[in-house]
This record gives sequence, C-alpha cells and structure tokens, in this order.
Amino acid sequence: MLTNHKIKILQSLDKKKFRQKYNLFLVEGNKIIKELKNSPFQVEEIYSTNPAEIDFFGDKIIPISDSELKKISFLKTPKDSVAVCRLKSSSILDASINIVLDGIQDPGNLGTIIRLADWFGIEQVICSKDTVDVYNPKVIQATMGSFTRVNVSYTALSDFLTGTEGVNIGTDMEGTSLFEFDFPKKFNLILGNEGNGIKPETLSSLSHKITIPRFGKNQSAESLNVSMAAAIITAQIFAKH
Amino acid sequence: MLTNHKIKILQSLDKKKFRQKYNLFLVEGNKIIKELKNSPFQVEEIYSTNPAEIDFFGDKIIPISDSELKKISFLKTPKDSVAVCRLKSSSILDASINIVLDGIQDPGNLGTIIRLADWFGIEQVICSKDTVDVYNPKVIQATMGSFTRVNVSYTALSDFLTGTEGVNIGTDMEGTSLFEFDFPKKFNLILGNEGNGIKPETLSSLSHKITIPRFGKNQSAESLNVSMAAAIITAQIFAKH
Repeated sequence: MLTNHKIKILQSLDKKKFRQKYNLFLVEGNKIIKELKNSPFQVEEIYSTNPAEIDFFGDKIIPISDSELKKISFLKTPKDSVAVCRLKSSSILDASINIVLDGIQDPGNLGTIIRLADWFGIEQVICSKDTVDVYNPKVIQATMGSFTRVNVSYTALSDFLTGTEGVNIGTDMEGTSLFEFDFPKKFNLILGNEGNGIKPETLSSLSHKITIPRFGKNQSAESLNVSMAAAIITAQIFAKH
Repeated sequence: MLTNHKIKILQSLDKKKFRQKYNLFLVEGNKIIKELKNSPFQVEEIYSTNPAEIDFFGDKIIPISDSELKKISFLKTPKDSVAVCRLKSSSILDASINIVLDGIQDPGNLGTIIRLADWFGIEQVICSKDTVDVYNPKVIQATMGSFTRVNVSYTALSDFLTGTEGVNIGTDMEGTSLFEFDFPKKFNLILGNEGNGIKPETLSSLSHKITIPRFGKNQSAESLNVSMAAAIITAQIFAKH
C-alpha cells in the first residue's frame, strides 16, 4: 500500500540528500524498469498502474491508481510505473576507454552521455565530485536504461588523472583537429562543464588537446553542446579503431 | 511602453496560430539578440532590462523592469531582454548538403540540429510539414542564434525528395555502416521522428540507407537520440570530405 508516509519519502528522492539518507532512487516507466531485471541494481518495490508488462518482478509489484502514480512521479506526464531501487556504490574499474566528466551540471547531458557510452560499449564514465548526481531522476530517465550497464563513479579528478596509466585527452578550442588525431588503445576522454569547459587544475593533467573543427563560415556559431561534442568524438574513436 | 494589451500579444506567441496571426516571434537574451543585427530578420522592438549591451539597436529598445520581463519571457529563468521579430518566409535554396527532417517533434532536437548545421556550415534544413515550427520559442532558444544563419524551410517531403537531383540518404537500422559509407558531393540527409523514424512514404524515396553501428555488447541499448545521431553522421561527412 502507498501510505502518506511512503509518498512523502518517495517525493523527497529528487534531492541527493534524501536519496542518500534513505539509500534509494526512483526509476520510471516499464520500458526502463524492465532493464533492472538482469542488472546489478536491487529493486525494493514497484508501484504500477500496468503490472502485467513487468509481472516477472513478482510480489515486488504494488498496484496503484493513476492518481497515486501522479503523486509519486517526477515526470510531467507520468508513465505507468515507478520502481524504488537501492543506490549502488561503485568503484573505478580498469577500462581501456573512460569518459571523464569535469563538472557537468545538466542532468540531460549526463544522461545522454551515459546512453552514448552504452551504445559504443564504453564501460565507464568517471565524474568529478561536482558533476550532477547520476541518481538524479532526470539523469536516470535521460539514460533510457543505460545506467544499468555503464559503471559511473565519482572521484577527485586530478588524483585519478595523474594516477592513471592511460593517456589523458581533453577537448579545447586550441587543440589538434579531431579528424587528424590518432587515438591510442587506452585513454581517458575528458569533457568539461557546459559554460566553463575543463577546470584549470584538470587541464594541467592533459597529455593531448583535441578540438572539433568548425566548418561553418560563421565564426560566431556557439560551441557545440557537451553531449553533441561527446557524440562526435566518441563516434570518431570507433570510426578509426 | 509595455501595455497590458501588448503583454497579452507577446504571451500568445508560444502558439504557432498566434505567431502567424501577428506575423511575430520572440528571441530572448542579449547574447542571441545580438546576432539578429546582421541577419535577414527584422526586429520590431526589444524589451530590455539591460539595454547598454545592445545599444546599437537604437530606438527599437524599450527599457522594462525585471517584473515586466518576467511577464513576457517564456524562460523559467528569464534573461535580460526579449526581442520581437517578424517571421521570415523562406524558400528552398540550391544547397549541396541538406539536412531533411521527417516529423521531428521535440523543439530541443530541432534547435540542436540547426545549431549543428551552422557549426558544420550546412546552409539548409528542410522540414516536413509536421515537424515542430522553427519559430517555437524553445526551438529558437535551443539554436543559440544559429537560426539566423541556417535556411529552414517546410515542404511536402516526398515532392521535394523525388524532385531533387541530390542523392537521398536516410538512417535505418538495416543500413550500411556510416563508417563504411562514402558520401557523394551533393545529397540530402534524411532523419526521422524520435519514436517512429522515417515515414514509409519518405523511406521509398531513399537511394541509400545508413546506420550508426552499435559497438556495445548490450543489444538492448535504446537507439540514439535523433540529435545525437545527426551530430555523429554530420561529423563523419566532414571527417571524410
């Protein structure tokens, strides 16, 4: 049953403080919830207006009404179900390619980059401590389920980048053209904050700087959004590998 | 002066019906408004809380208060100024590369694709009649000013695609790998709707189908967002040209 006390807890989970307090986060929509089945994430309970589609979760499913769903959903247009999951602590894996994010603020950008990593089989995204929380409901939804397959860790970037044996490649307006750059077998791809780019202390750990050349005549074109840049660079890595 | 009557008109401009009735649309923020100066767009008036930054617009500027700005802005966090511009009718140019959109619904996706076209110097985006309106305030803001430089036209796609001498290249799950495809000098790149892809009647005009290969082991990864796909494909065109 969905008690008022429970509703209050679920509604608080859009804030990191409460996600950590209760050790819980939400996943919405049967399409994404299905992917939790064979994932390392532990599902506590699923409040659903359409349980038939996800009946393999058995007695974790608690049928609710549309109006109850509206109360616990963070979406403007609530879908069918809301799964309550446990946070998962994650440690850094030894991966050949890491996407490293330095202060990404927009939940949509982080979610899209995780989805992109999943598409290209990049196993790990490493985030600076000031990057938006992966368990933010907007991030989770933007990953379209890819958060179940990509390892996302938060760490002090400069320690990670100086301690790693991989080559550190960052984006910079003054870098080598992406299209003329040869990626090594093992490296970290560092992407900076939406407005301010890579932080000075992170820049100093870079061994290579690359840039996406601008072919338009109009030099006033705003630089590309960080998730678009990530897509273009990642595709180039695999185009050449 | 910002009369109540005027406020009502400006507030109505988030709807296509009223943009067409008044022949007007809004552009927000000095950063983007500056780009209107040397553009083909006609600025009627600019309501501004920070006119000094855009004083070259002269007596088109009408100083307003923060609370007045709040009333006319469509942004959650209003910026500094709102420019009222005339709609511009556009005819289809003879361009070597056209991005062709078949039923794109999300304003952010259309805006991002226009910004991407501008970055890579693609002069024209051709939209099916059911694609979201370029003068939708969310599209305009997502272009970051690129709408002033890219020609965006709406037309019946099947007529355009069968009448054009360019090669029609569309994205499809069953296509040739993007990374193995050689783009001709002159072509149309067709991208489909977020959920349903390219319409059957449009598919029949394609001469080539391409796909972005998925390198991830997990075949359940959702297909990439259309603006991410556009970024990856467009970059490949220029990587090879």
